[in-house]
Amino acid sequence: MTIQEKAAAMKLDSSKMAAKPAEVRNGALCNIKNSLLRNQQEIFDANAQDLAEAEKNNIPEAVVKRLKFTEQKLLDVTKGIENLIALEDMVYETQFVRELDNGLTLVRESCPIGVIGVIFEARPDALVQIASLCIKSGNCAILKGGSETKNTNRILFQLIYDAAVQSGLPENCLFQAQLRDEISALLNCHESVDLLIPRGSNAFVQYIMDNTKIPVMGHADGLCHIYVDKEFDIEKAIPVIIDAKTQYTAACNAVETLLIHKDALDALMPRLCEALKAHQIELRATQEIADQYECVLAVEEDFATEYLDLILSAKTVENIEEAVNHINRYGSHHTDCIITEEQNAAEYFMKMVDSAGVYQNCSTRFADGFRYGFGAEVGISTGKIHARGPVGIEGLLTYKYKLFGNGQIVADYASGKKQFHFKDIK
Amino acid sequence: MTIQEKAAAMKLDSSKMAAKPAEVRNGALCNIKNSLLRNQQEIFDANAQDLAEAEKNNIPEAVVKRLKFTEQKLLDVTKGIENLIALEDMVYETQFVRELDNGLTLVRESCPIGVIGVIFEARPDALVQIASLCIKSGNCAILKGGSETKNTNRILFQLIYDAAVQSGLPENCLFQAQLRDEISALLNCHESVDLLIPRGSNAFVQYIMDNTKIPVMGHADGLCHIYVDKEFDIEKAIPVIIDAKTQYTAACNAVETLLIHKDALDALMPRLCEALKAHQIELRATQEIADQYECVLAVEEDFATEYLDLILSAKTVENIEEAVNHINRYGSHHTDCIITEEQNAAEYFMKMVDSAGVYQNCSTRFADGFRYGFGAEVGISTGKIHARGPVGIEGLLTYKYKLFGNGQIVADYASGKKQFHFKDIK
Repeated sequence: MTIQEKAAAMKLDSSKMAAKPAEVRNGALCNIKNSLLRNQQEIFDANAQDLAEAEKNNIPEAVVKRLKFTEQKLLDVTKGIENLIALEDMVYETQFVRELDNGLTLVRESCPIGVIGVIFEARPDALVQIASLCIKSGNCAILKGGSETKNTNRILFQLIYDAAVQSGLPENCLFQAQLRDEISALLNCHESVDLLIPRGSNAFVQYIMDNTKIPVMGHADGLCHIYVDKEFDIEKAIPVIIDAKTQYTAACNAVETLLIHKDALDALMPRLCEALKAHQIELRATQEIADQYECVLAVEEDFATEYLDLILSAKTVENIEEAVNHINRYGSHHTDCIITEEQNAAEYFMKMVDSAGVYQNCSTRFADGFRYGFGAEVGISTGKIHARGPVGIEGLLTYKYKLFGNGQIVADYASGKKQFHFKDIK
Repeated sequence: MTIQEKAAAMKLDSSKMAAKPAEVRNGALCNIKNSLLRNQQEIFDANAQDLAEAEKNNIPEAVVKRLKFTEQKLLDVTKGIENLIALEDMVYETQFVRELDNGLTLVRESCPIGVIGVIFEARPDALVQIASLCIKSGNCAILKGGSETKNTNRILFQLIYDAAVQSGLPENCLFQAQLRDEISALLNCHESVDLLIPRGSNAFVQYIMDNTKIPVMGHADGLCHIYVDKEFDIEKAIPVIIDAKTQYTAACNAVETLLIHKDALDALMPRLCEALKAHQIELRATQEIADQYECVLAVEEDFATEYLDLILSAKTVENIEEAVNHINRYGSHHTDCIITEEQNAAEYFMKMVDSAGVYQNCSTRFADGFRYGFGAEVGISTGKIHARGPVGIEGLLTYKYKLFGNGQIVADYASGKKQFHFKDIK
């Protein structure tokens, strides 16, 4: 079966999947959890194969760390599944009920999107999380993980799929794409796939966005800013800047550019330079900063660069308006922070900065589904259509309008014989 | 200024537009309404020019009817603006407030999307409605109307724009594209335009969807079904079918295909054939119907055709499952109706049919923003991402996450020094 044929079969099954009640979906999650625990040795053996291949191929240490599926990671993902089971069901939620006229009632109810394609990095725990989220939300899913974890993914997927179908989910609820060239086949499935969620490098996500008619949710860039305002608390500024840069430097929500109000420069820089040095962070700053403090001179391009490295660009601004304009122009609409003790300044910044996350006095690294309390996330969206920011179950749902009548026709309302009375019941 | 330059300027102004409080946006709407009323003669004169050109070009009568901007239409649109002003403001609505930890509070707030491009049919009232909806929702808008109304649109836009800017809205809040080749330029503005809403013929909308990286909201096809179930009330079935076909035959929510439970055929057909004949509707049906009743024999393609004409395709089905499968396969996920007195059948149909609107015992023609009580609509979406079905103000909004802290860093939570407590406040 080609990916196209498989996707078409999933599309047909997606209504059956969507109609499964919460008990069946939660039952499947419970069986998946138990199966993973019962078959853990098989999973660890497959993972050992992936690790051996990674060593042979000189895969970098940081990647190997993500590949490794330890007992702790198994406990984490099964705990994650338990949390999902405990989470209140959001499918078939009545969003509003409106009586349009006597005996003519409009109901808006949430429902699954249908068929979701997720392309994700080489991390076995990601496969388990994404499959669980899709089952909890009643969606069919096509999963494509990084090839470096192919052995682990194969056994994980088999255990998940078998448990899902044995629990009563439809035959085509889940499918694993295993070959790299299946990605381009998947991109052509706009007749059957409702939403694509790519995760990975900027270039990869951008490639996906540029090469499919399927709606794409995600983010290519993560160029986050911290702006230090005139009235700021240095005891907050220094740890927040250092955390946002170093807590996970390669993350999309790490800070890349620091904007400093010109009147804040003298109070901030001496201690900041010390802290940057202690953490081996290279500072690339504009002339007025470089004149006074030890750093590399920044060029225009620095402010358009997502370093994902221990480098921080910096420039001074005349006022908060300039900071906002810089962020809206150079930023990626991901997450941007103001360090200020002035509530008016925070309010202005948060209203004017056009990003999914606008923060006051805390690290940009908080932009994450788990840290927002969503239980899990399938990705972070910098788009403004559908879901924005970290995306949990809600982003995997849409809604439908149900209209209950007893023979009403539009002609009666067009002619004025009858009138709508629009009474909101819920 | 090219469209690209204009769109980029609008993008920069979109934050200013988004930050305008409800009073300013409503004030602008009020001034627009007054200006349209005050300058009505100028509008009618321009419209007379359009009508004269239409006559010269032998534009069909149905189109001319839409072109014509009468005193009644002016009253309707100004009444529409009044309704919008009265509508509760949905921008900056707090959607939830969650304390992640002491002194670390996450707020999700609705906000405008940014820059919206709307390409719409030759109807002067559409320009006023769309511009008003965008202003009410705090969005900047690029408007391109059908060329047959260019004179009327030019004066309408000028009055609206002048009143908007004089009321305090930013310089680049609205822009009117006037040339046809500006459409292709607009399609390339994915750096600046957040959402495109095309309205018009199927082929046109499909062209837009296929030729831009900007997210598109709308619908190409409207292939709606009515399924007559085993247990049905003929007093509801006949008027609903006739209304859905004839009340506005060229509309996207008109019915195109009738599915009939085999056990309902004998009870339905005699009276239906009579009614179809009385309304000059051609019936194209499958063999088992054609054997008994006078009609054209349908071919496979009939069930994939949106006639937009006085033609109705029909076929019998063995059971409700077959009806659902037919609709999910041939339909356009727009609006589909079941005629049944059995609540279980209705429930099954409404759960399993994968459409924006699923109806029981009422005309598919109800699928419309005004009839749903949304005040106005910018379009109807058959996509499942973002807004679905008729789209009013809510579909022109997104949200942002605001995180208020006092120096919190992620390292403390990663190390276990601090824990999230996730307390929902709203």
